[in-house]
Amino acid sequence: MQKGEQTRQRIIEEAAKIFNQRGFAGCSIQDVMEATGLEKGGVYRHFASKEELAVEAFRYALSLSVKMRTEGPGYAGSAIEQLRYAVRHFIETPSVFPGGCPLMNTAVDANDGNPALRQLACDALKKWRAVLCSIVEDGIAHGEIRSGANPRQIANTIIASLEGALMISRLEGTKRALCDVQEMFEMILAEIGTAREVRLGSAE
Amino acid sequence: MQKGEQTRQRIIEEAAKIFNQRGFAGCSIQDVMEATGLEKGGVYRHFASKEELAVEAFRYALSLSVKMRTEGPGYAGSAIEQLRYAVRHFIETPSVFPGGCPLMNTAVDANDGNPALRQLACDALKKWRAVLCSIVEDGIAHGEIRSGANPRQIANTIIASLEGALMISRLEGTKRALCDVQEMFEMILAEIGTAREVRLGSAE
Repeated sequence: MQKGEQTRQRIIEEAAKIFNQRGFAGCSIQDVMEATGLEKGGVYRHFASKEELAVEAFRYALSLSVKMRTEGPGYAGSAIEQLRYAVRHFIETPSVFPGGCPLMNTAVDANDGNPALRQLACDALKKWRAVLCSIVEDGIAHGEIRSGANPRQIANTIIASLEGALMISRLEGTKRALCDVQEMFEMILAEIGTAREVRLGSAE
Repeated sequence: MQKGEQTRQRIIEEAAKIFNQRGFAGCSIQDVMEATGLEKGGVYRHFASKEELAVEAFRYALSLSVKMRTEGPGYAGSAIEQLRYAVRHFIETPSVFPGGCPLMNTAVDANDGNPALRQLACDALKKWRAVLCSIVEDGIAHGEIRSGANPRQIANTIIASLEGALMISRLEGTKRALCDVQEMFEMILAEIGTAREVRLGSAE
């Protein structure tokens, strides 16, 4: 990577942390200058505007976030075990940066105005959901999950309840809501799993 | 209500709509002036600062929101029916203003900086959860919900999954995620309800 490219990447990474904490409107180029130690010209050499930098920063934060949600040693074993891991891993590592989940922050931030950021959040959501859906589909194909289960419904419920619980947990400064959701989720696993798989999963 | 008091209330109501859509940092006194048709002096006569106005605006939005979530003709009948109503009512009327749920917006907006707004969001969350908890507790007392059910766990799961699903639904411009969560919630109701109540509830 050339020096110019390295600087560009460093600006994106620092900006991602600030945007994730303060949102698009709450973060200025001045903040990015302070975090990177660059002059205004040094930032604007790489990005034409705050908007352009924000798109790259949010794209970086969201891609890291999706990677963290969908990759890991726990994505092996039965479908039930993988779903259980997805939930546990989210609770153990709810965000890549300070400031909460980039997906929720971008969604709330962008919903009423910024179409480019909104599209990035939509894409990140789709990727995360697709991974969860394919776990459920494989589980059905292998007889680990009941054939009547709806992959999209399960994936949306996992994402929605984890994201909402993270919002509550951050607000209250405790992981209680996340753990509550995790326990209720065991009820759903017991319902969708075929008997053998649920028993094996619970015993791990 | 005196004229001055009426003007103050009108400023709060207009500001609440704008803050809910754009967040604290994304909304200026200029925006409030435009929405109310008042001069700067007309706004500052009632509020010493944007911060002071924001606190009143968020307080107003959150109290309306909690009222909408916790009152209504559906809060009658069995505990299972009431929980089902709480979920359905949220899906039918997800927010009092344009811009999504004031609770989530305030929580995400305030989490990394504004302690006064954060406290307002915390209080609103507690009130909403207390109402759901007391429905579950009454349900246990009346033999409609299993004695082993955990009221806080159920309440946190309802709030988390609805708030998260609303975030997804707004992002995607469809109610699908909300409906997915609603259907999965029926699984939880079937699990926590005593047999008689679940059967009655499903037949409504």
